[in-house]
Amino acid sequence: MNVVESAAIVGLGLMGGSLARDLAARGVAVRAYDSDASHLAAALRDGVVTEALDASLAGVRGADAIVVAVPVDAAVEVLHRIAPYAGTARLITDVGSTKTRILEAAHSAGLGARFVGSHPMAGDHRSGWEASRTGLFAGACVYLCPSPETRGDVDLATTFWTELGARIEVLPADEHDRKLAWSSHLPHMVSVGLALALARTGVERDDLGPGGRDVTRLAGSSPEVWTAIARDNAVEIDAALAAAQTELEEIRDALRRADDDELRARFARARTWFTT
Amino acid sequence: MNVVESAAIVGLGLMGGSLARDLAARGVAVRAYDSDASHLAAALRDGVVTEALDASLAGVRGADAIVVAVPVDAAVEVLHRIAPYAGTARLITDVGSTKTRILEAAHSAGLGARFVGSHPMAGDHRSGWEASRTGLFAGACVYLCPSPETRGDVDLATTFWTELGARIEVLPADEHDRKLAWSSHLPHMVSVGLALALARTGVERDDLGPGGRDVTRLAGSSPEVWTAIARDNAVEIDAALAAAQTELEEIRDALRRADDDELRARFARARTWFTT
Repeated sequence: MNVVESAAIVGLGLMGGSLARDLAARGVAVRAYDSDASHLAAALRDGVVTEALDASLAGVRGADAIVVAVPVDAAVEVLHRIAPYAGTARLITDVGSTKTRILEAAHSAGLGARFVGSHPMAGDHRSGWEASRTGLFAGACVYLCPSPETRGDVDLATTFWTELGARIEVLPADEHDRKLAWSSHLPHMVSVGLALALARTGVERDDLGPGGRDVTRLAGSSPEVWTAIARDNAVEIDAALAAAQTELEEIRDALRRADDDELRARFARARTWFTT
Repeated sequence: MNVVESAAIVGLGLMGGSLARDLAARGVAVRAYDSDASHLAAALRDGVVTEALDASLAGVRGADAIVVAVPVDAAVEVLHRIAPYAGTARLITDVGSTKTRILEAAHSAGLGARFVGSHPMAGDHRSGWEASRTGLFAGACVYLCPSPETRGDVDLATTFWTELGARIEVLPADEHDRKLAWSSHLPHMVSVGLALALARTGVERDDLGPGGRDVTRLAGSSPEVWTAIARDNAVEIDAALAAAQTELEEIRDALRRADDDELRARFARARTWFTT
């Protein structure tokens, strides 16, 4: 017995596609839209999605849950597009990595009373339907950011995600965006910056060992998804990047001073953080 | 049939321990020393090492191969300690991540004619005997840096490592150190710097998603091993870190200017590097 019997999913990428797979596997009727017709066709062919929606998104009408799973800039527009048809949906949510702007959009689209922002910490450098898979959310943390005007939907959203194996953390959108600037967006930008430095000097990814390949893995992520995230959370990400640069500068200082004790202390502090 | 029948390994950490396991599995008689008696005892108990050496290292005498597998600063001292007993060894090598200084040490210890520096790109954030495992070198690149005074040993060293599944790249020590500053040491320092920034702001590793955990994995590495590497290759690592900082600064500029096109172009360039 699922908390929803039907779901409409807009966007069949890693997040939306994986969600569709998990819901379908549990017997939820999944209809979906994707601007890439080949993704939609594949999802229908795989039997995950039973009904393809057209670009008007009028077909979301009547679904118990509506999930917007497109890059965060596009999600704002999609919310406005679905608003006329979302009358009976009990849960309207998204999967984006920033939450302040999407909550504002839900409010301005008149959906604020039923919208709960979701952010599953289940990202990956891969993207698109072909990257989607069942079980993506099992054990993952899903942040829930309710709109200020409602609380009731949080219980429903909590059940929706915990049925898929996620654990829930509820927090206000501004707090989420500040926290994620550090815990998600900063590691991403650092990985990209490293990749760009290596690219510029002619070092290929095949030249790296297993550790270096891990550090640069996020550089393979979708440019579209991350441009939107970066724009949405630019101020917080900039502050986090400044802090990382300070740490790198201090490592460089210790290198130039040949200060073994200082280097060892920093490596030891990093390992303590890693292990605790 | 192995290229060596007996090996003496000094240091039973991730590298030395894994090497001992692979050699023992192939029927090579492995004797070893580790300054941590518990590591040595465990290796004897597991049947990997058949003879424990004492700290004089006089017991390396007669071994076909001698492998120094301690942090790169300690390796210099160990080479001098084994020199009086290394008369009949056909191959003397190490596993360190920097090569210029160890080749100088081999020369000054009178071992230059038989020493070939080895650097297996099979590192890991884990360390110590308990992290060692069979098959660590399968598919890994092993850099070989011959001393300027000899060439003959390279064939033997090549066979030694390829028997364990490694592929070989031969290059001069200074070129190796410059290359590895980028392909290995830079990713390491970036991972550490990121971890330190997160630690300072109170973000725990459990707060990260799968991607962020990968980016920070190397921060869990041995401070002793990495202090020695950093010191050995400080000038090259500093230059590489400067390049990474430039890239991060340029990302920050684009964030502050809210320049979507510039951000997207950078993310796209990083992904192109990742996928090609």
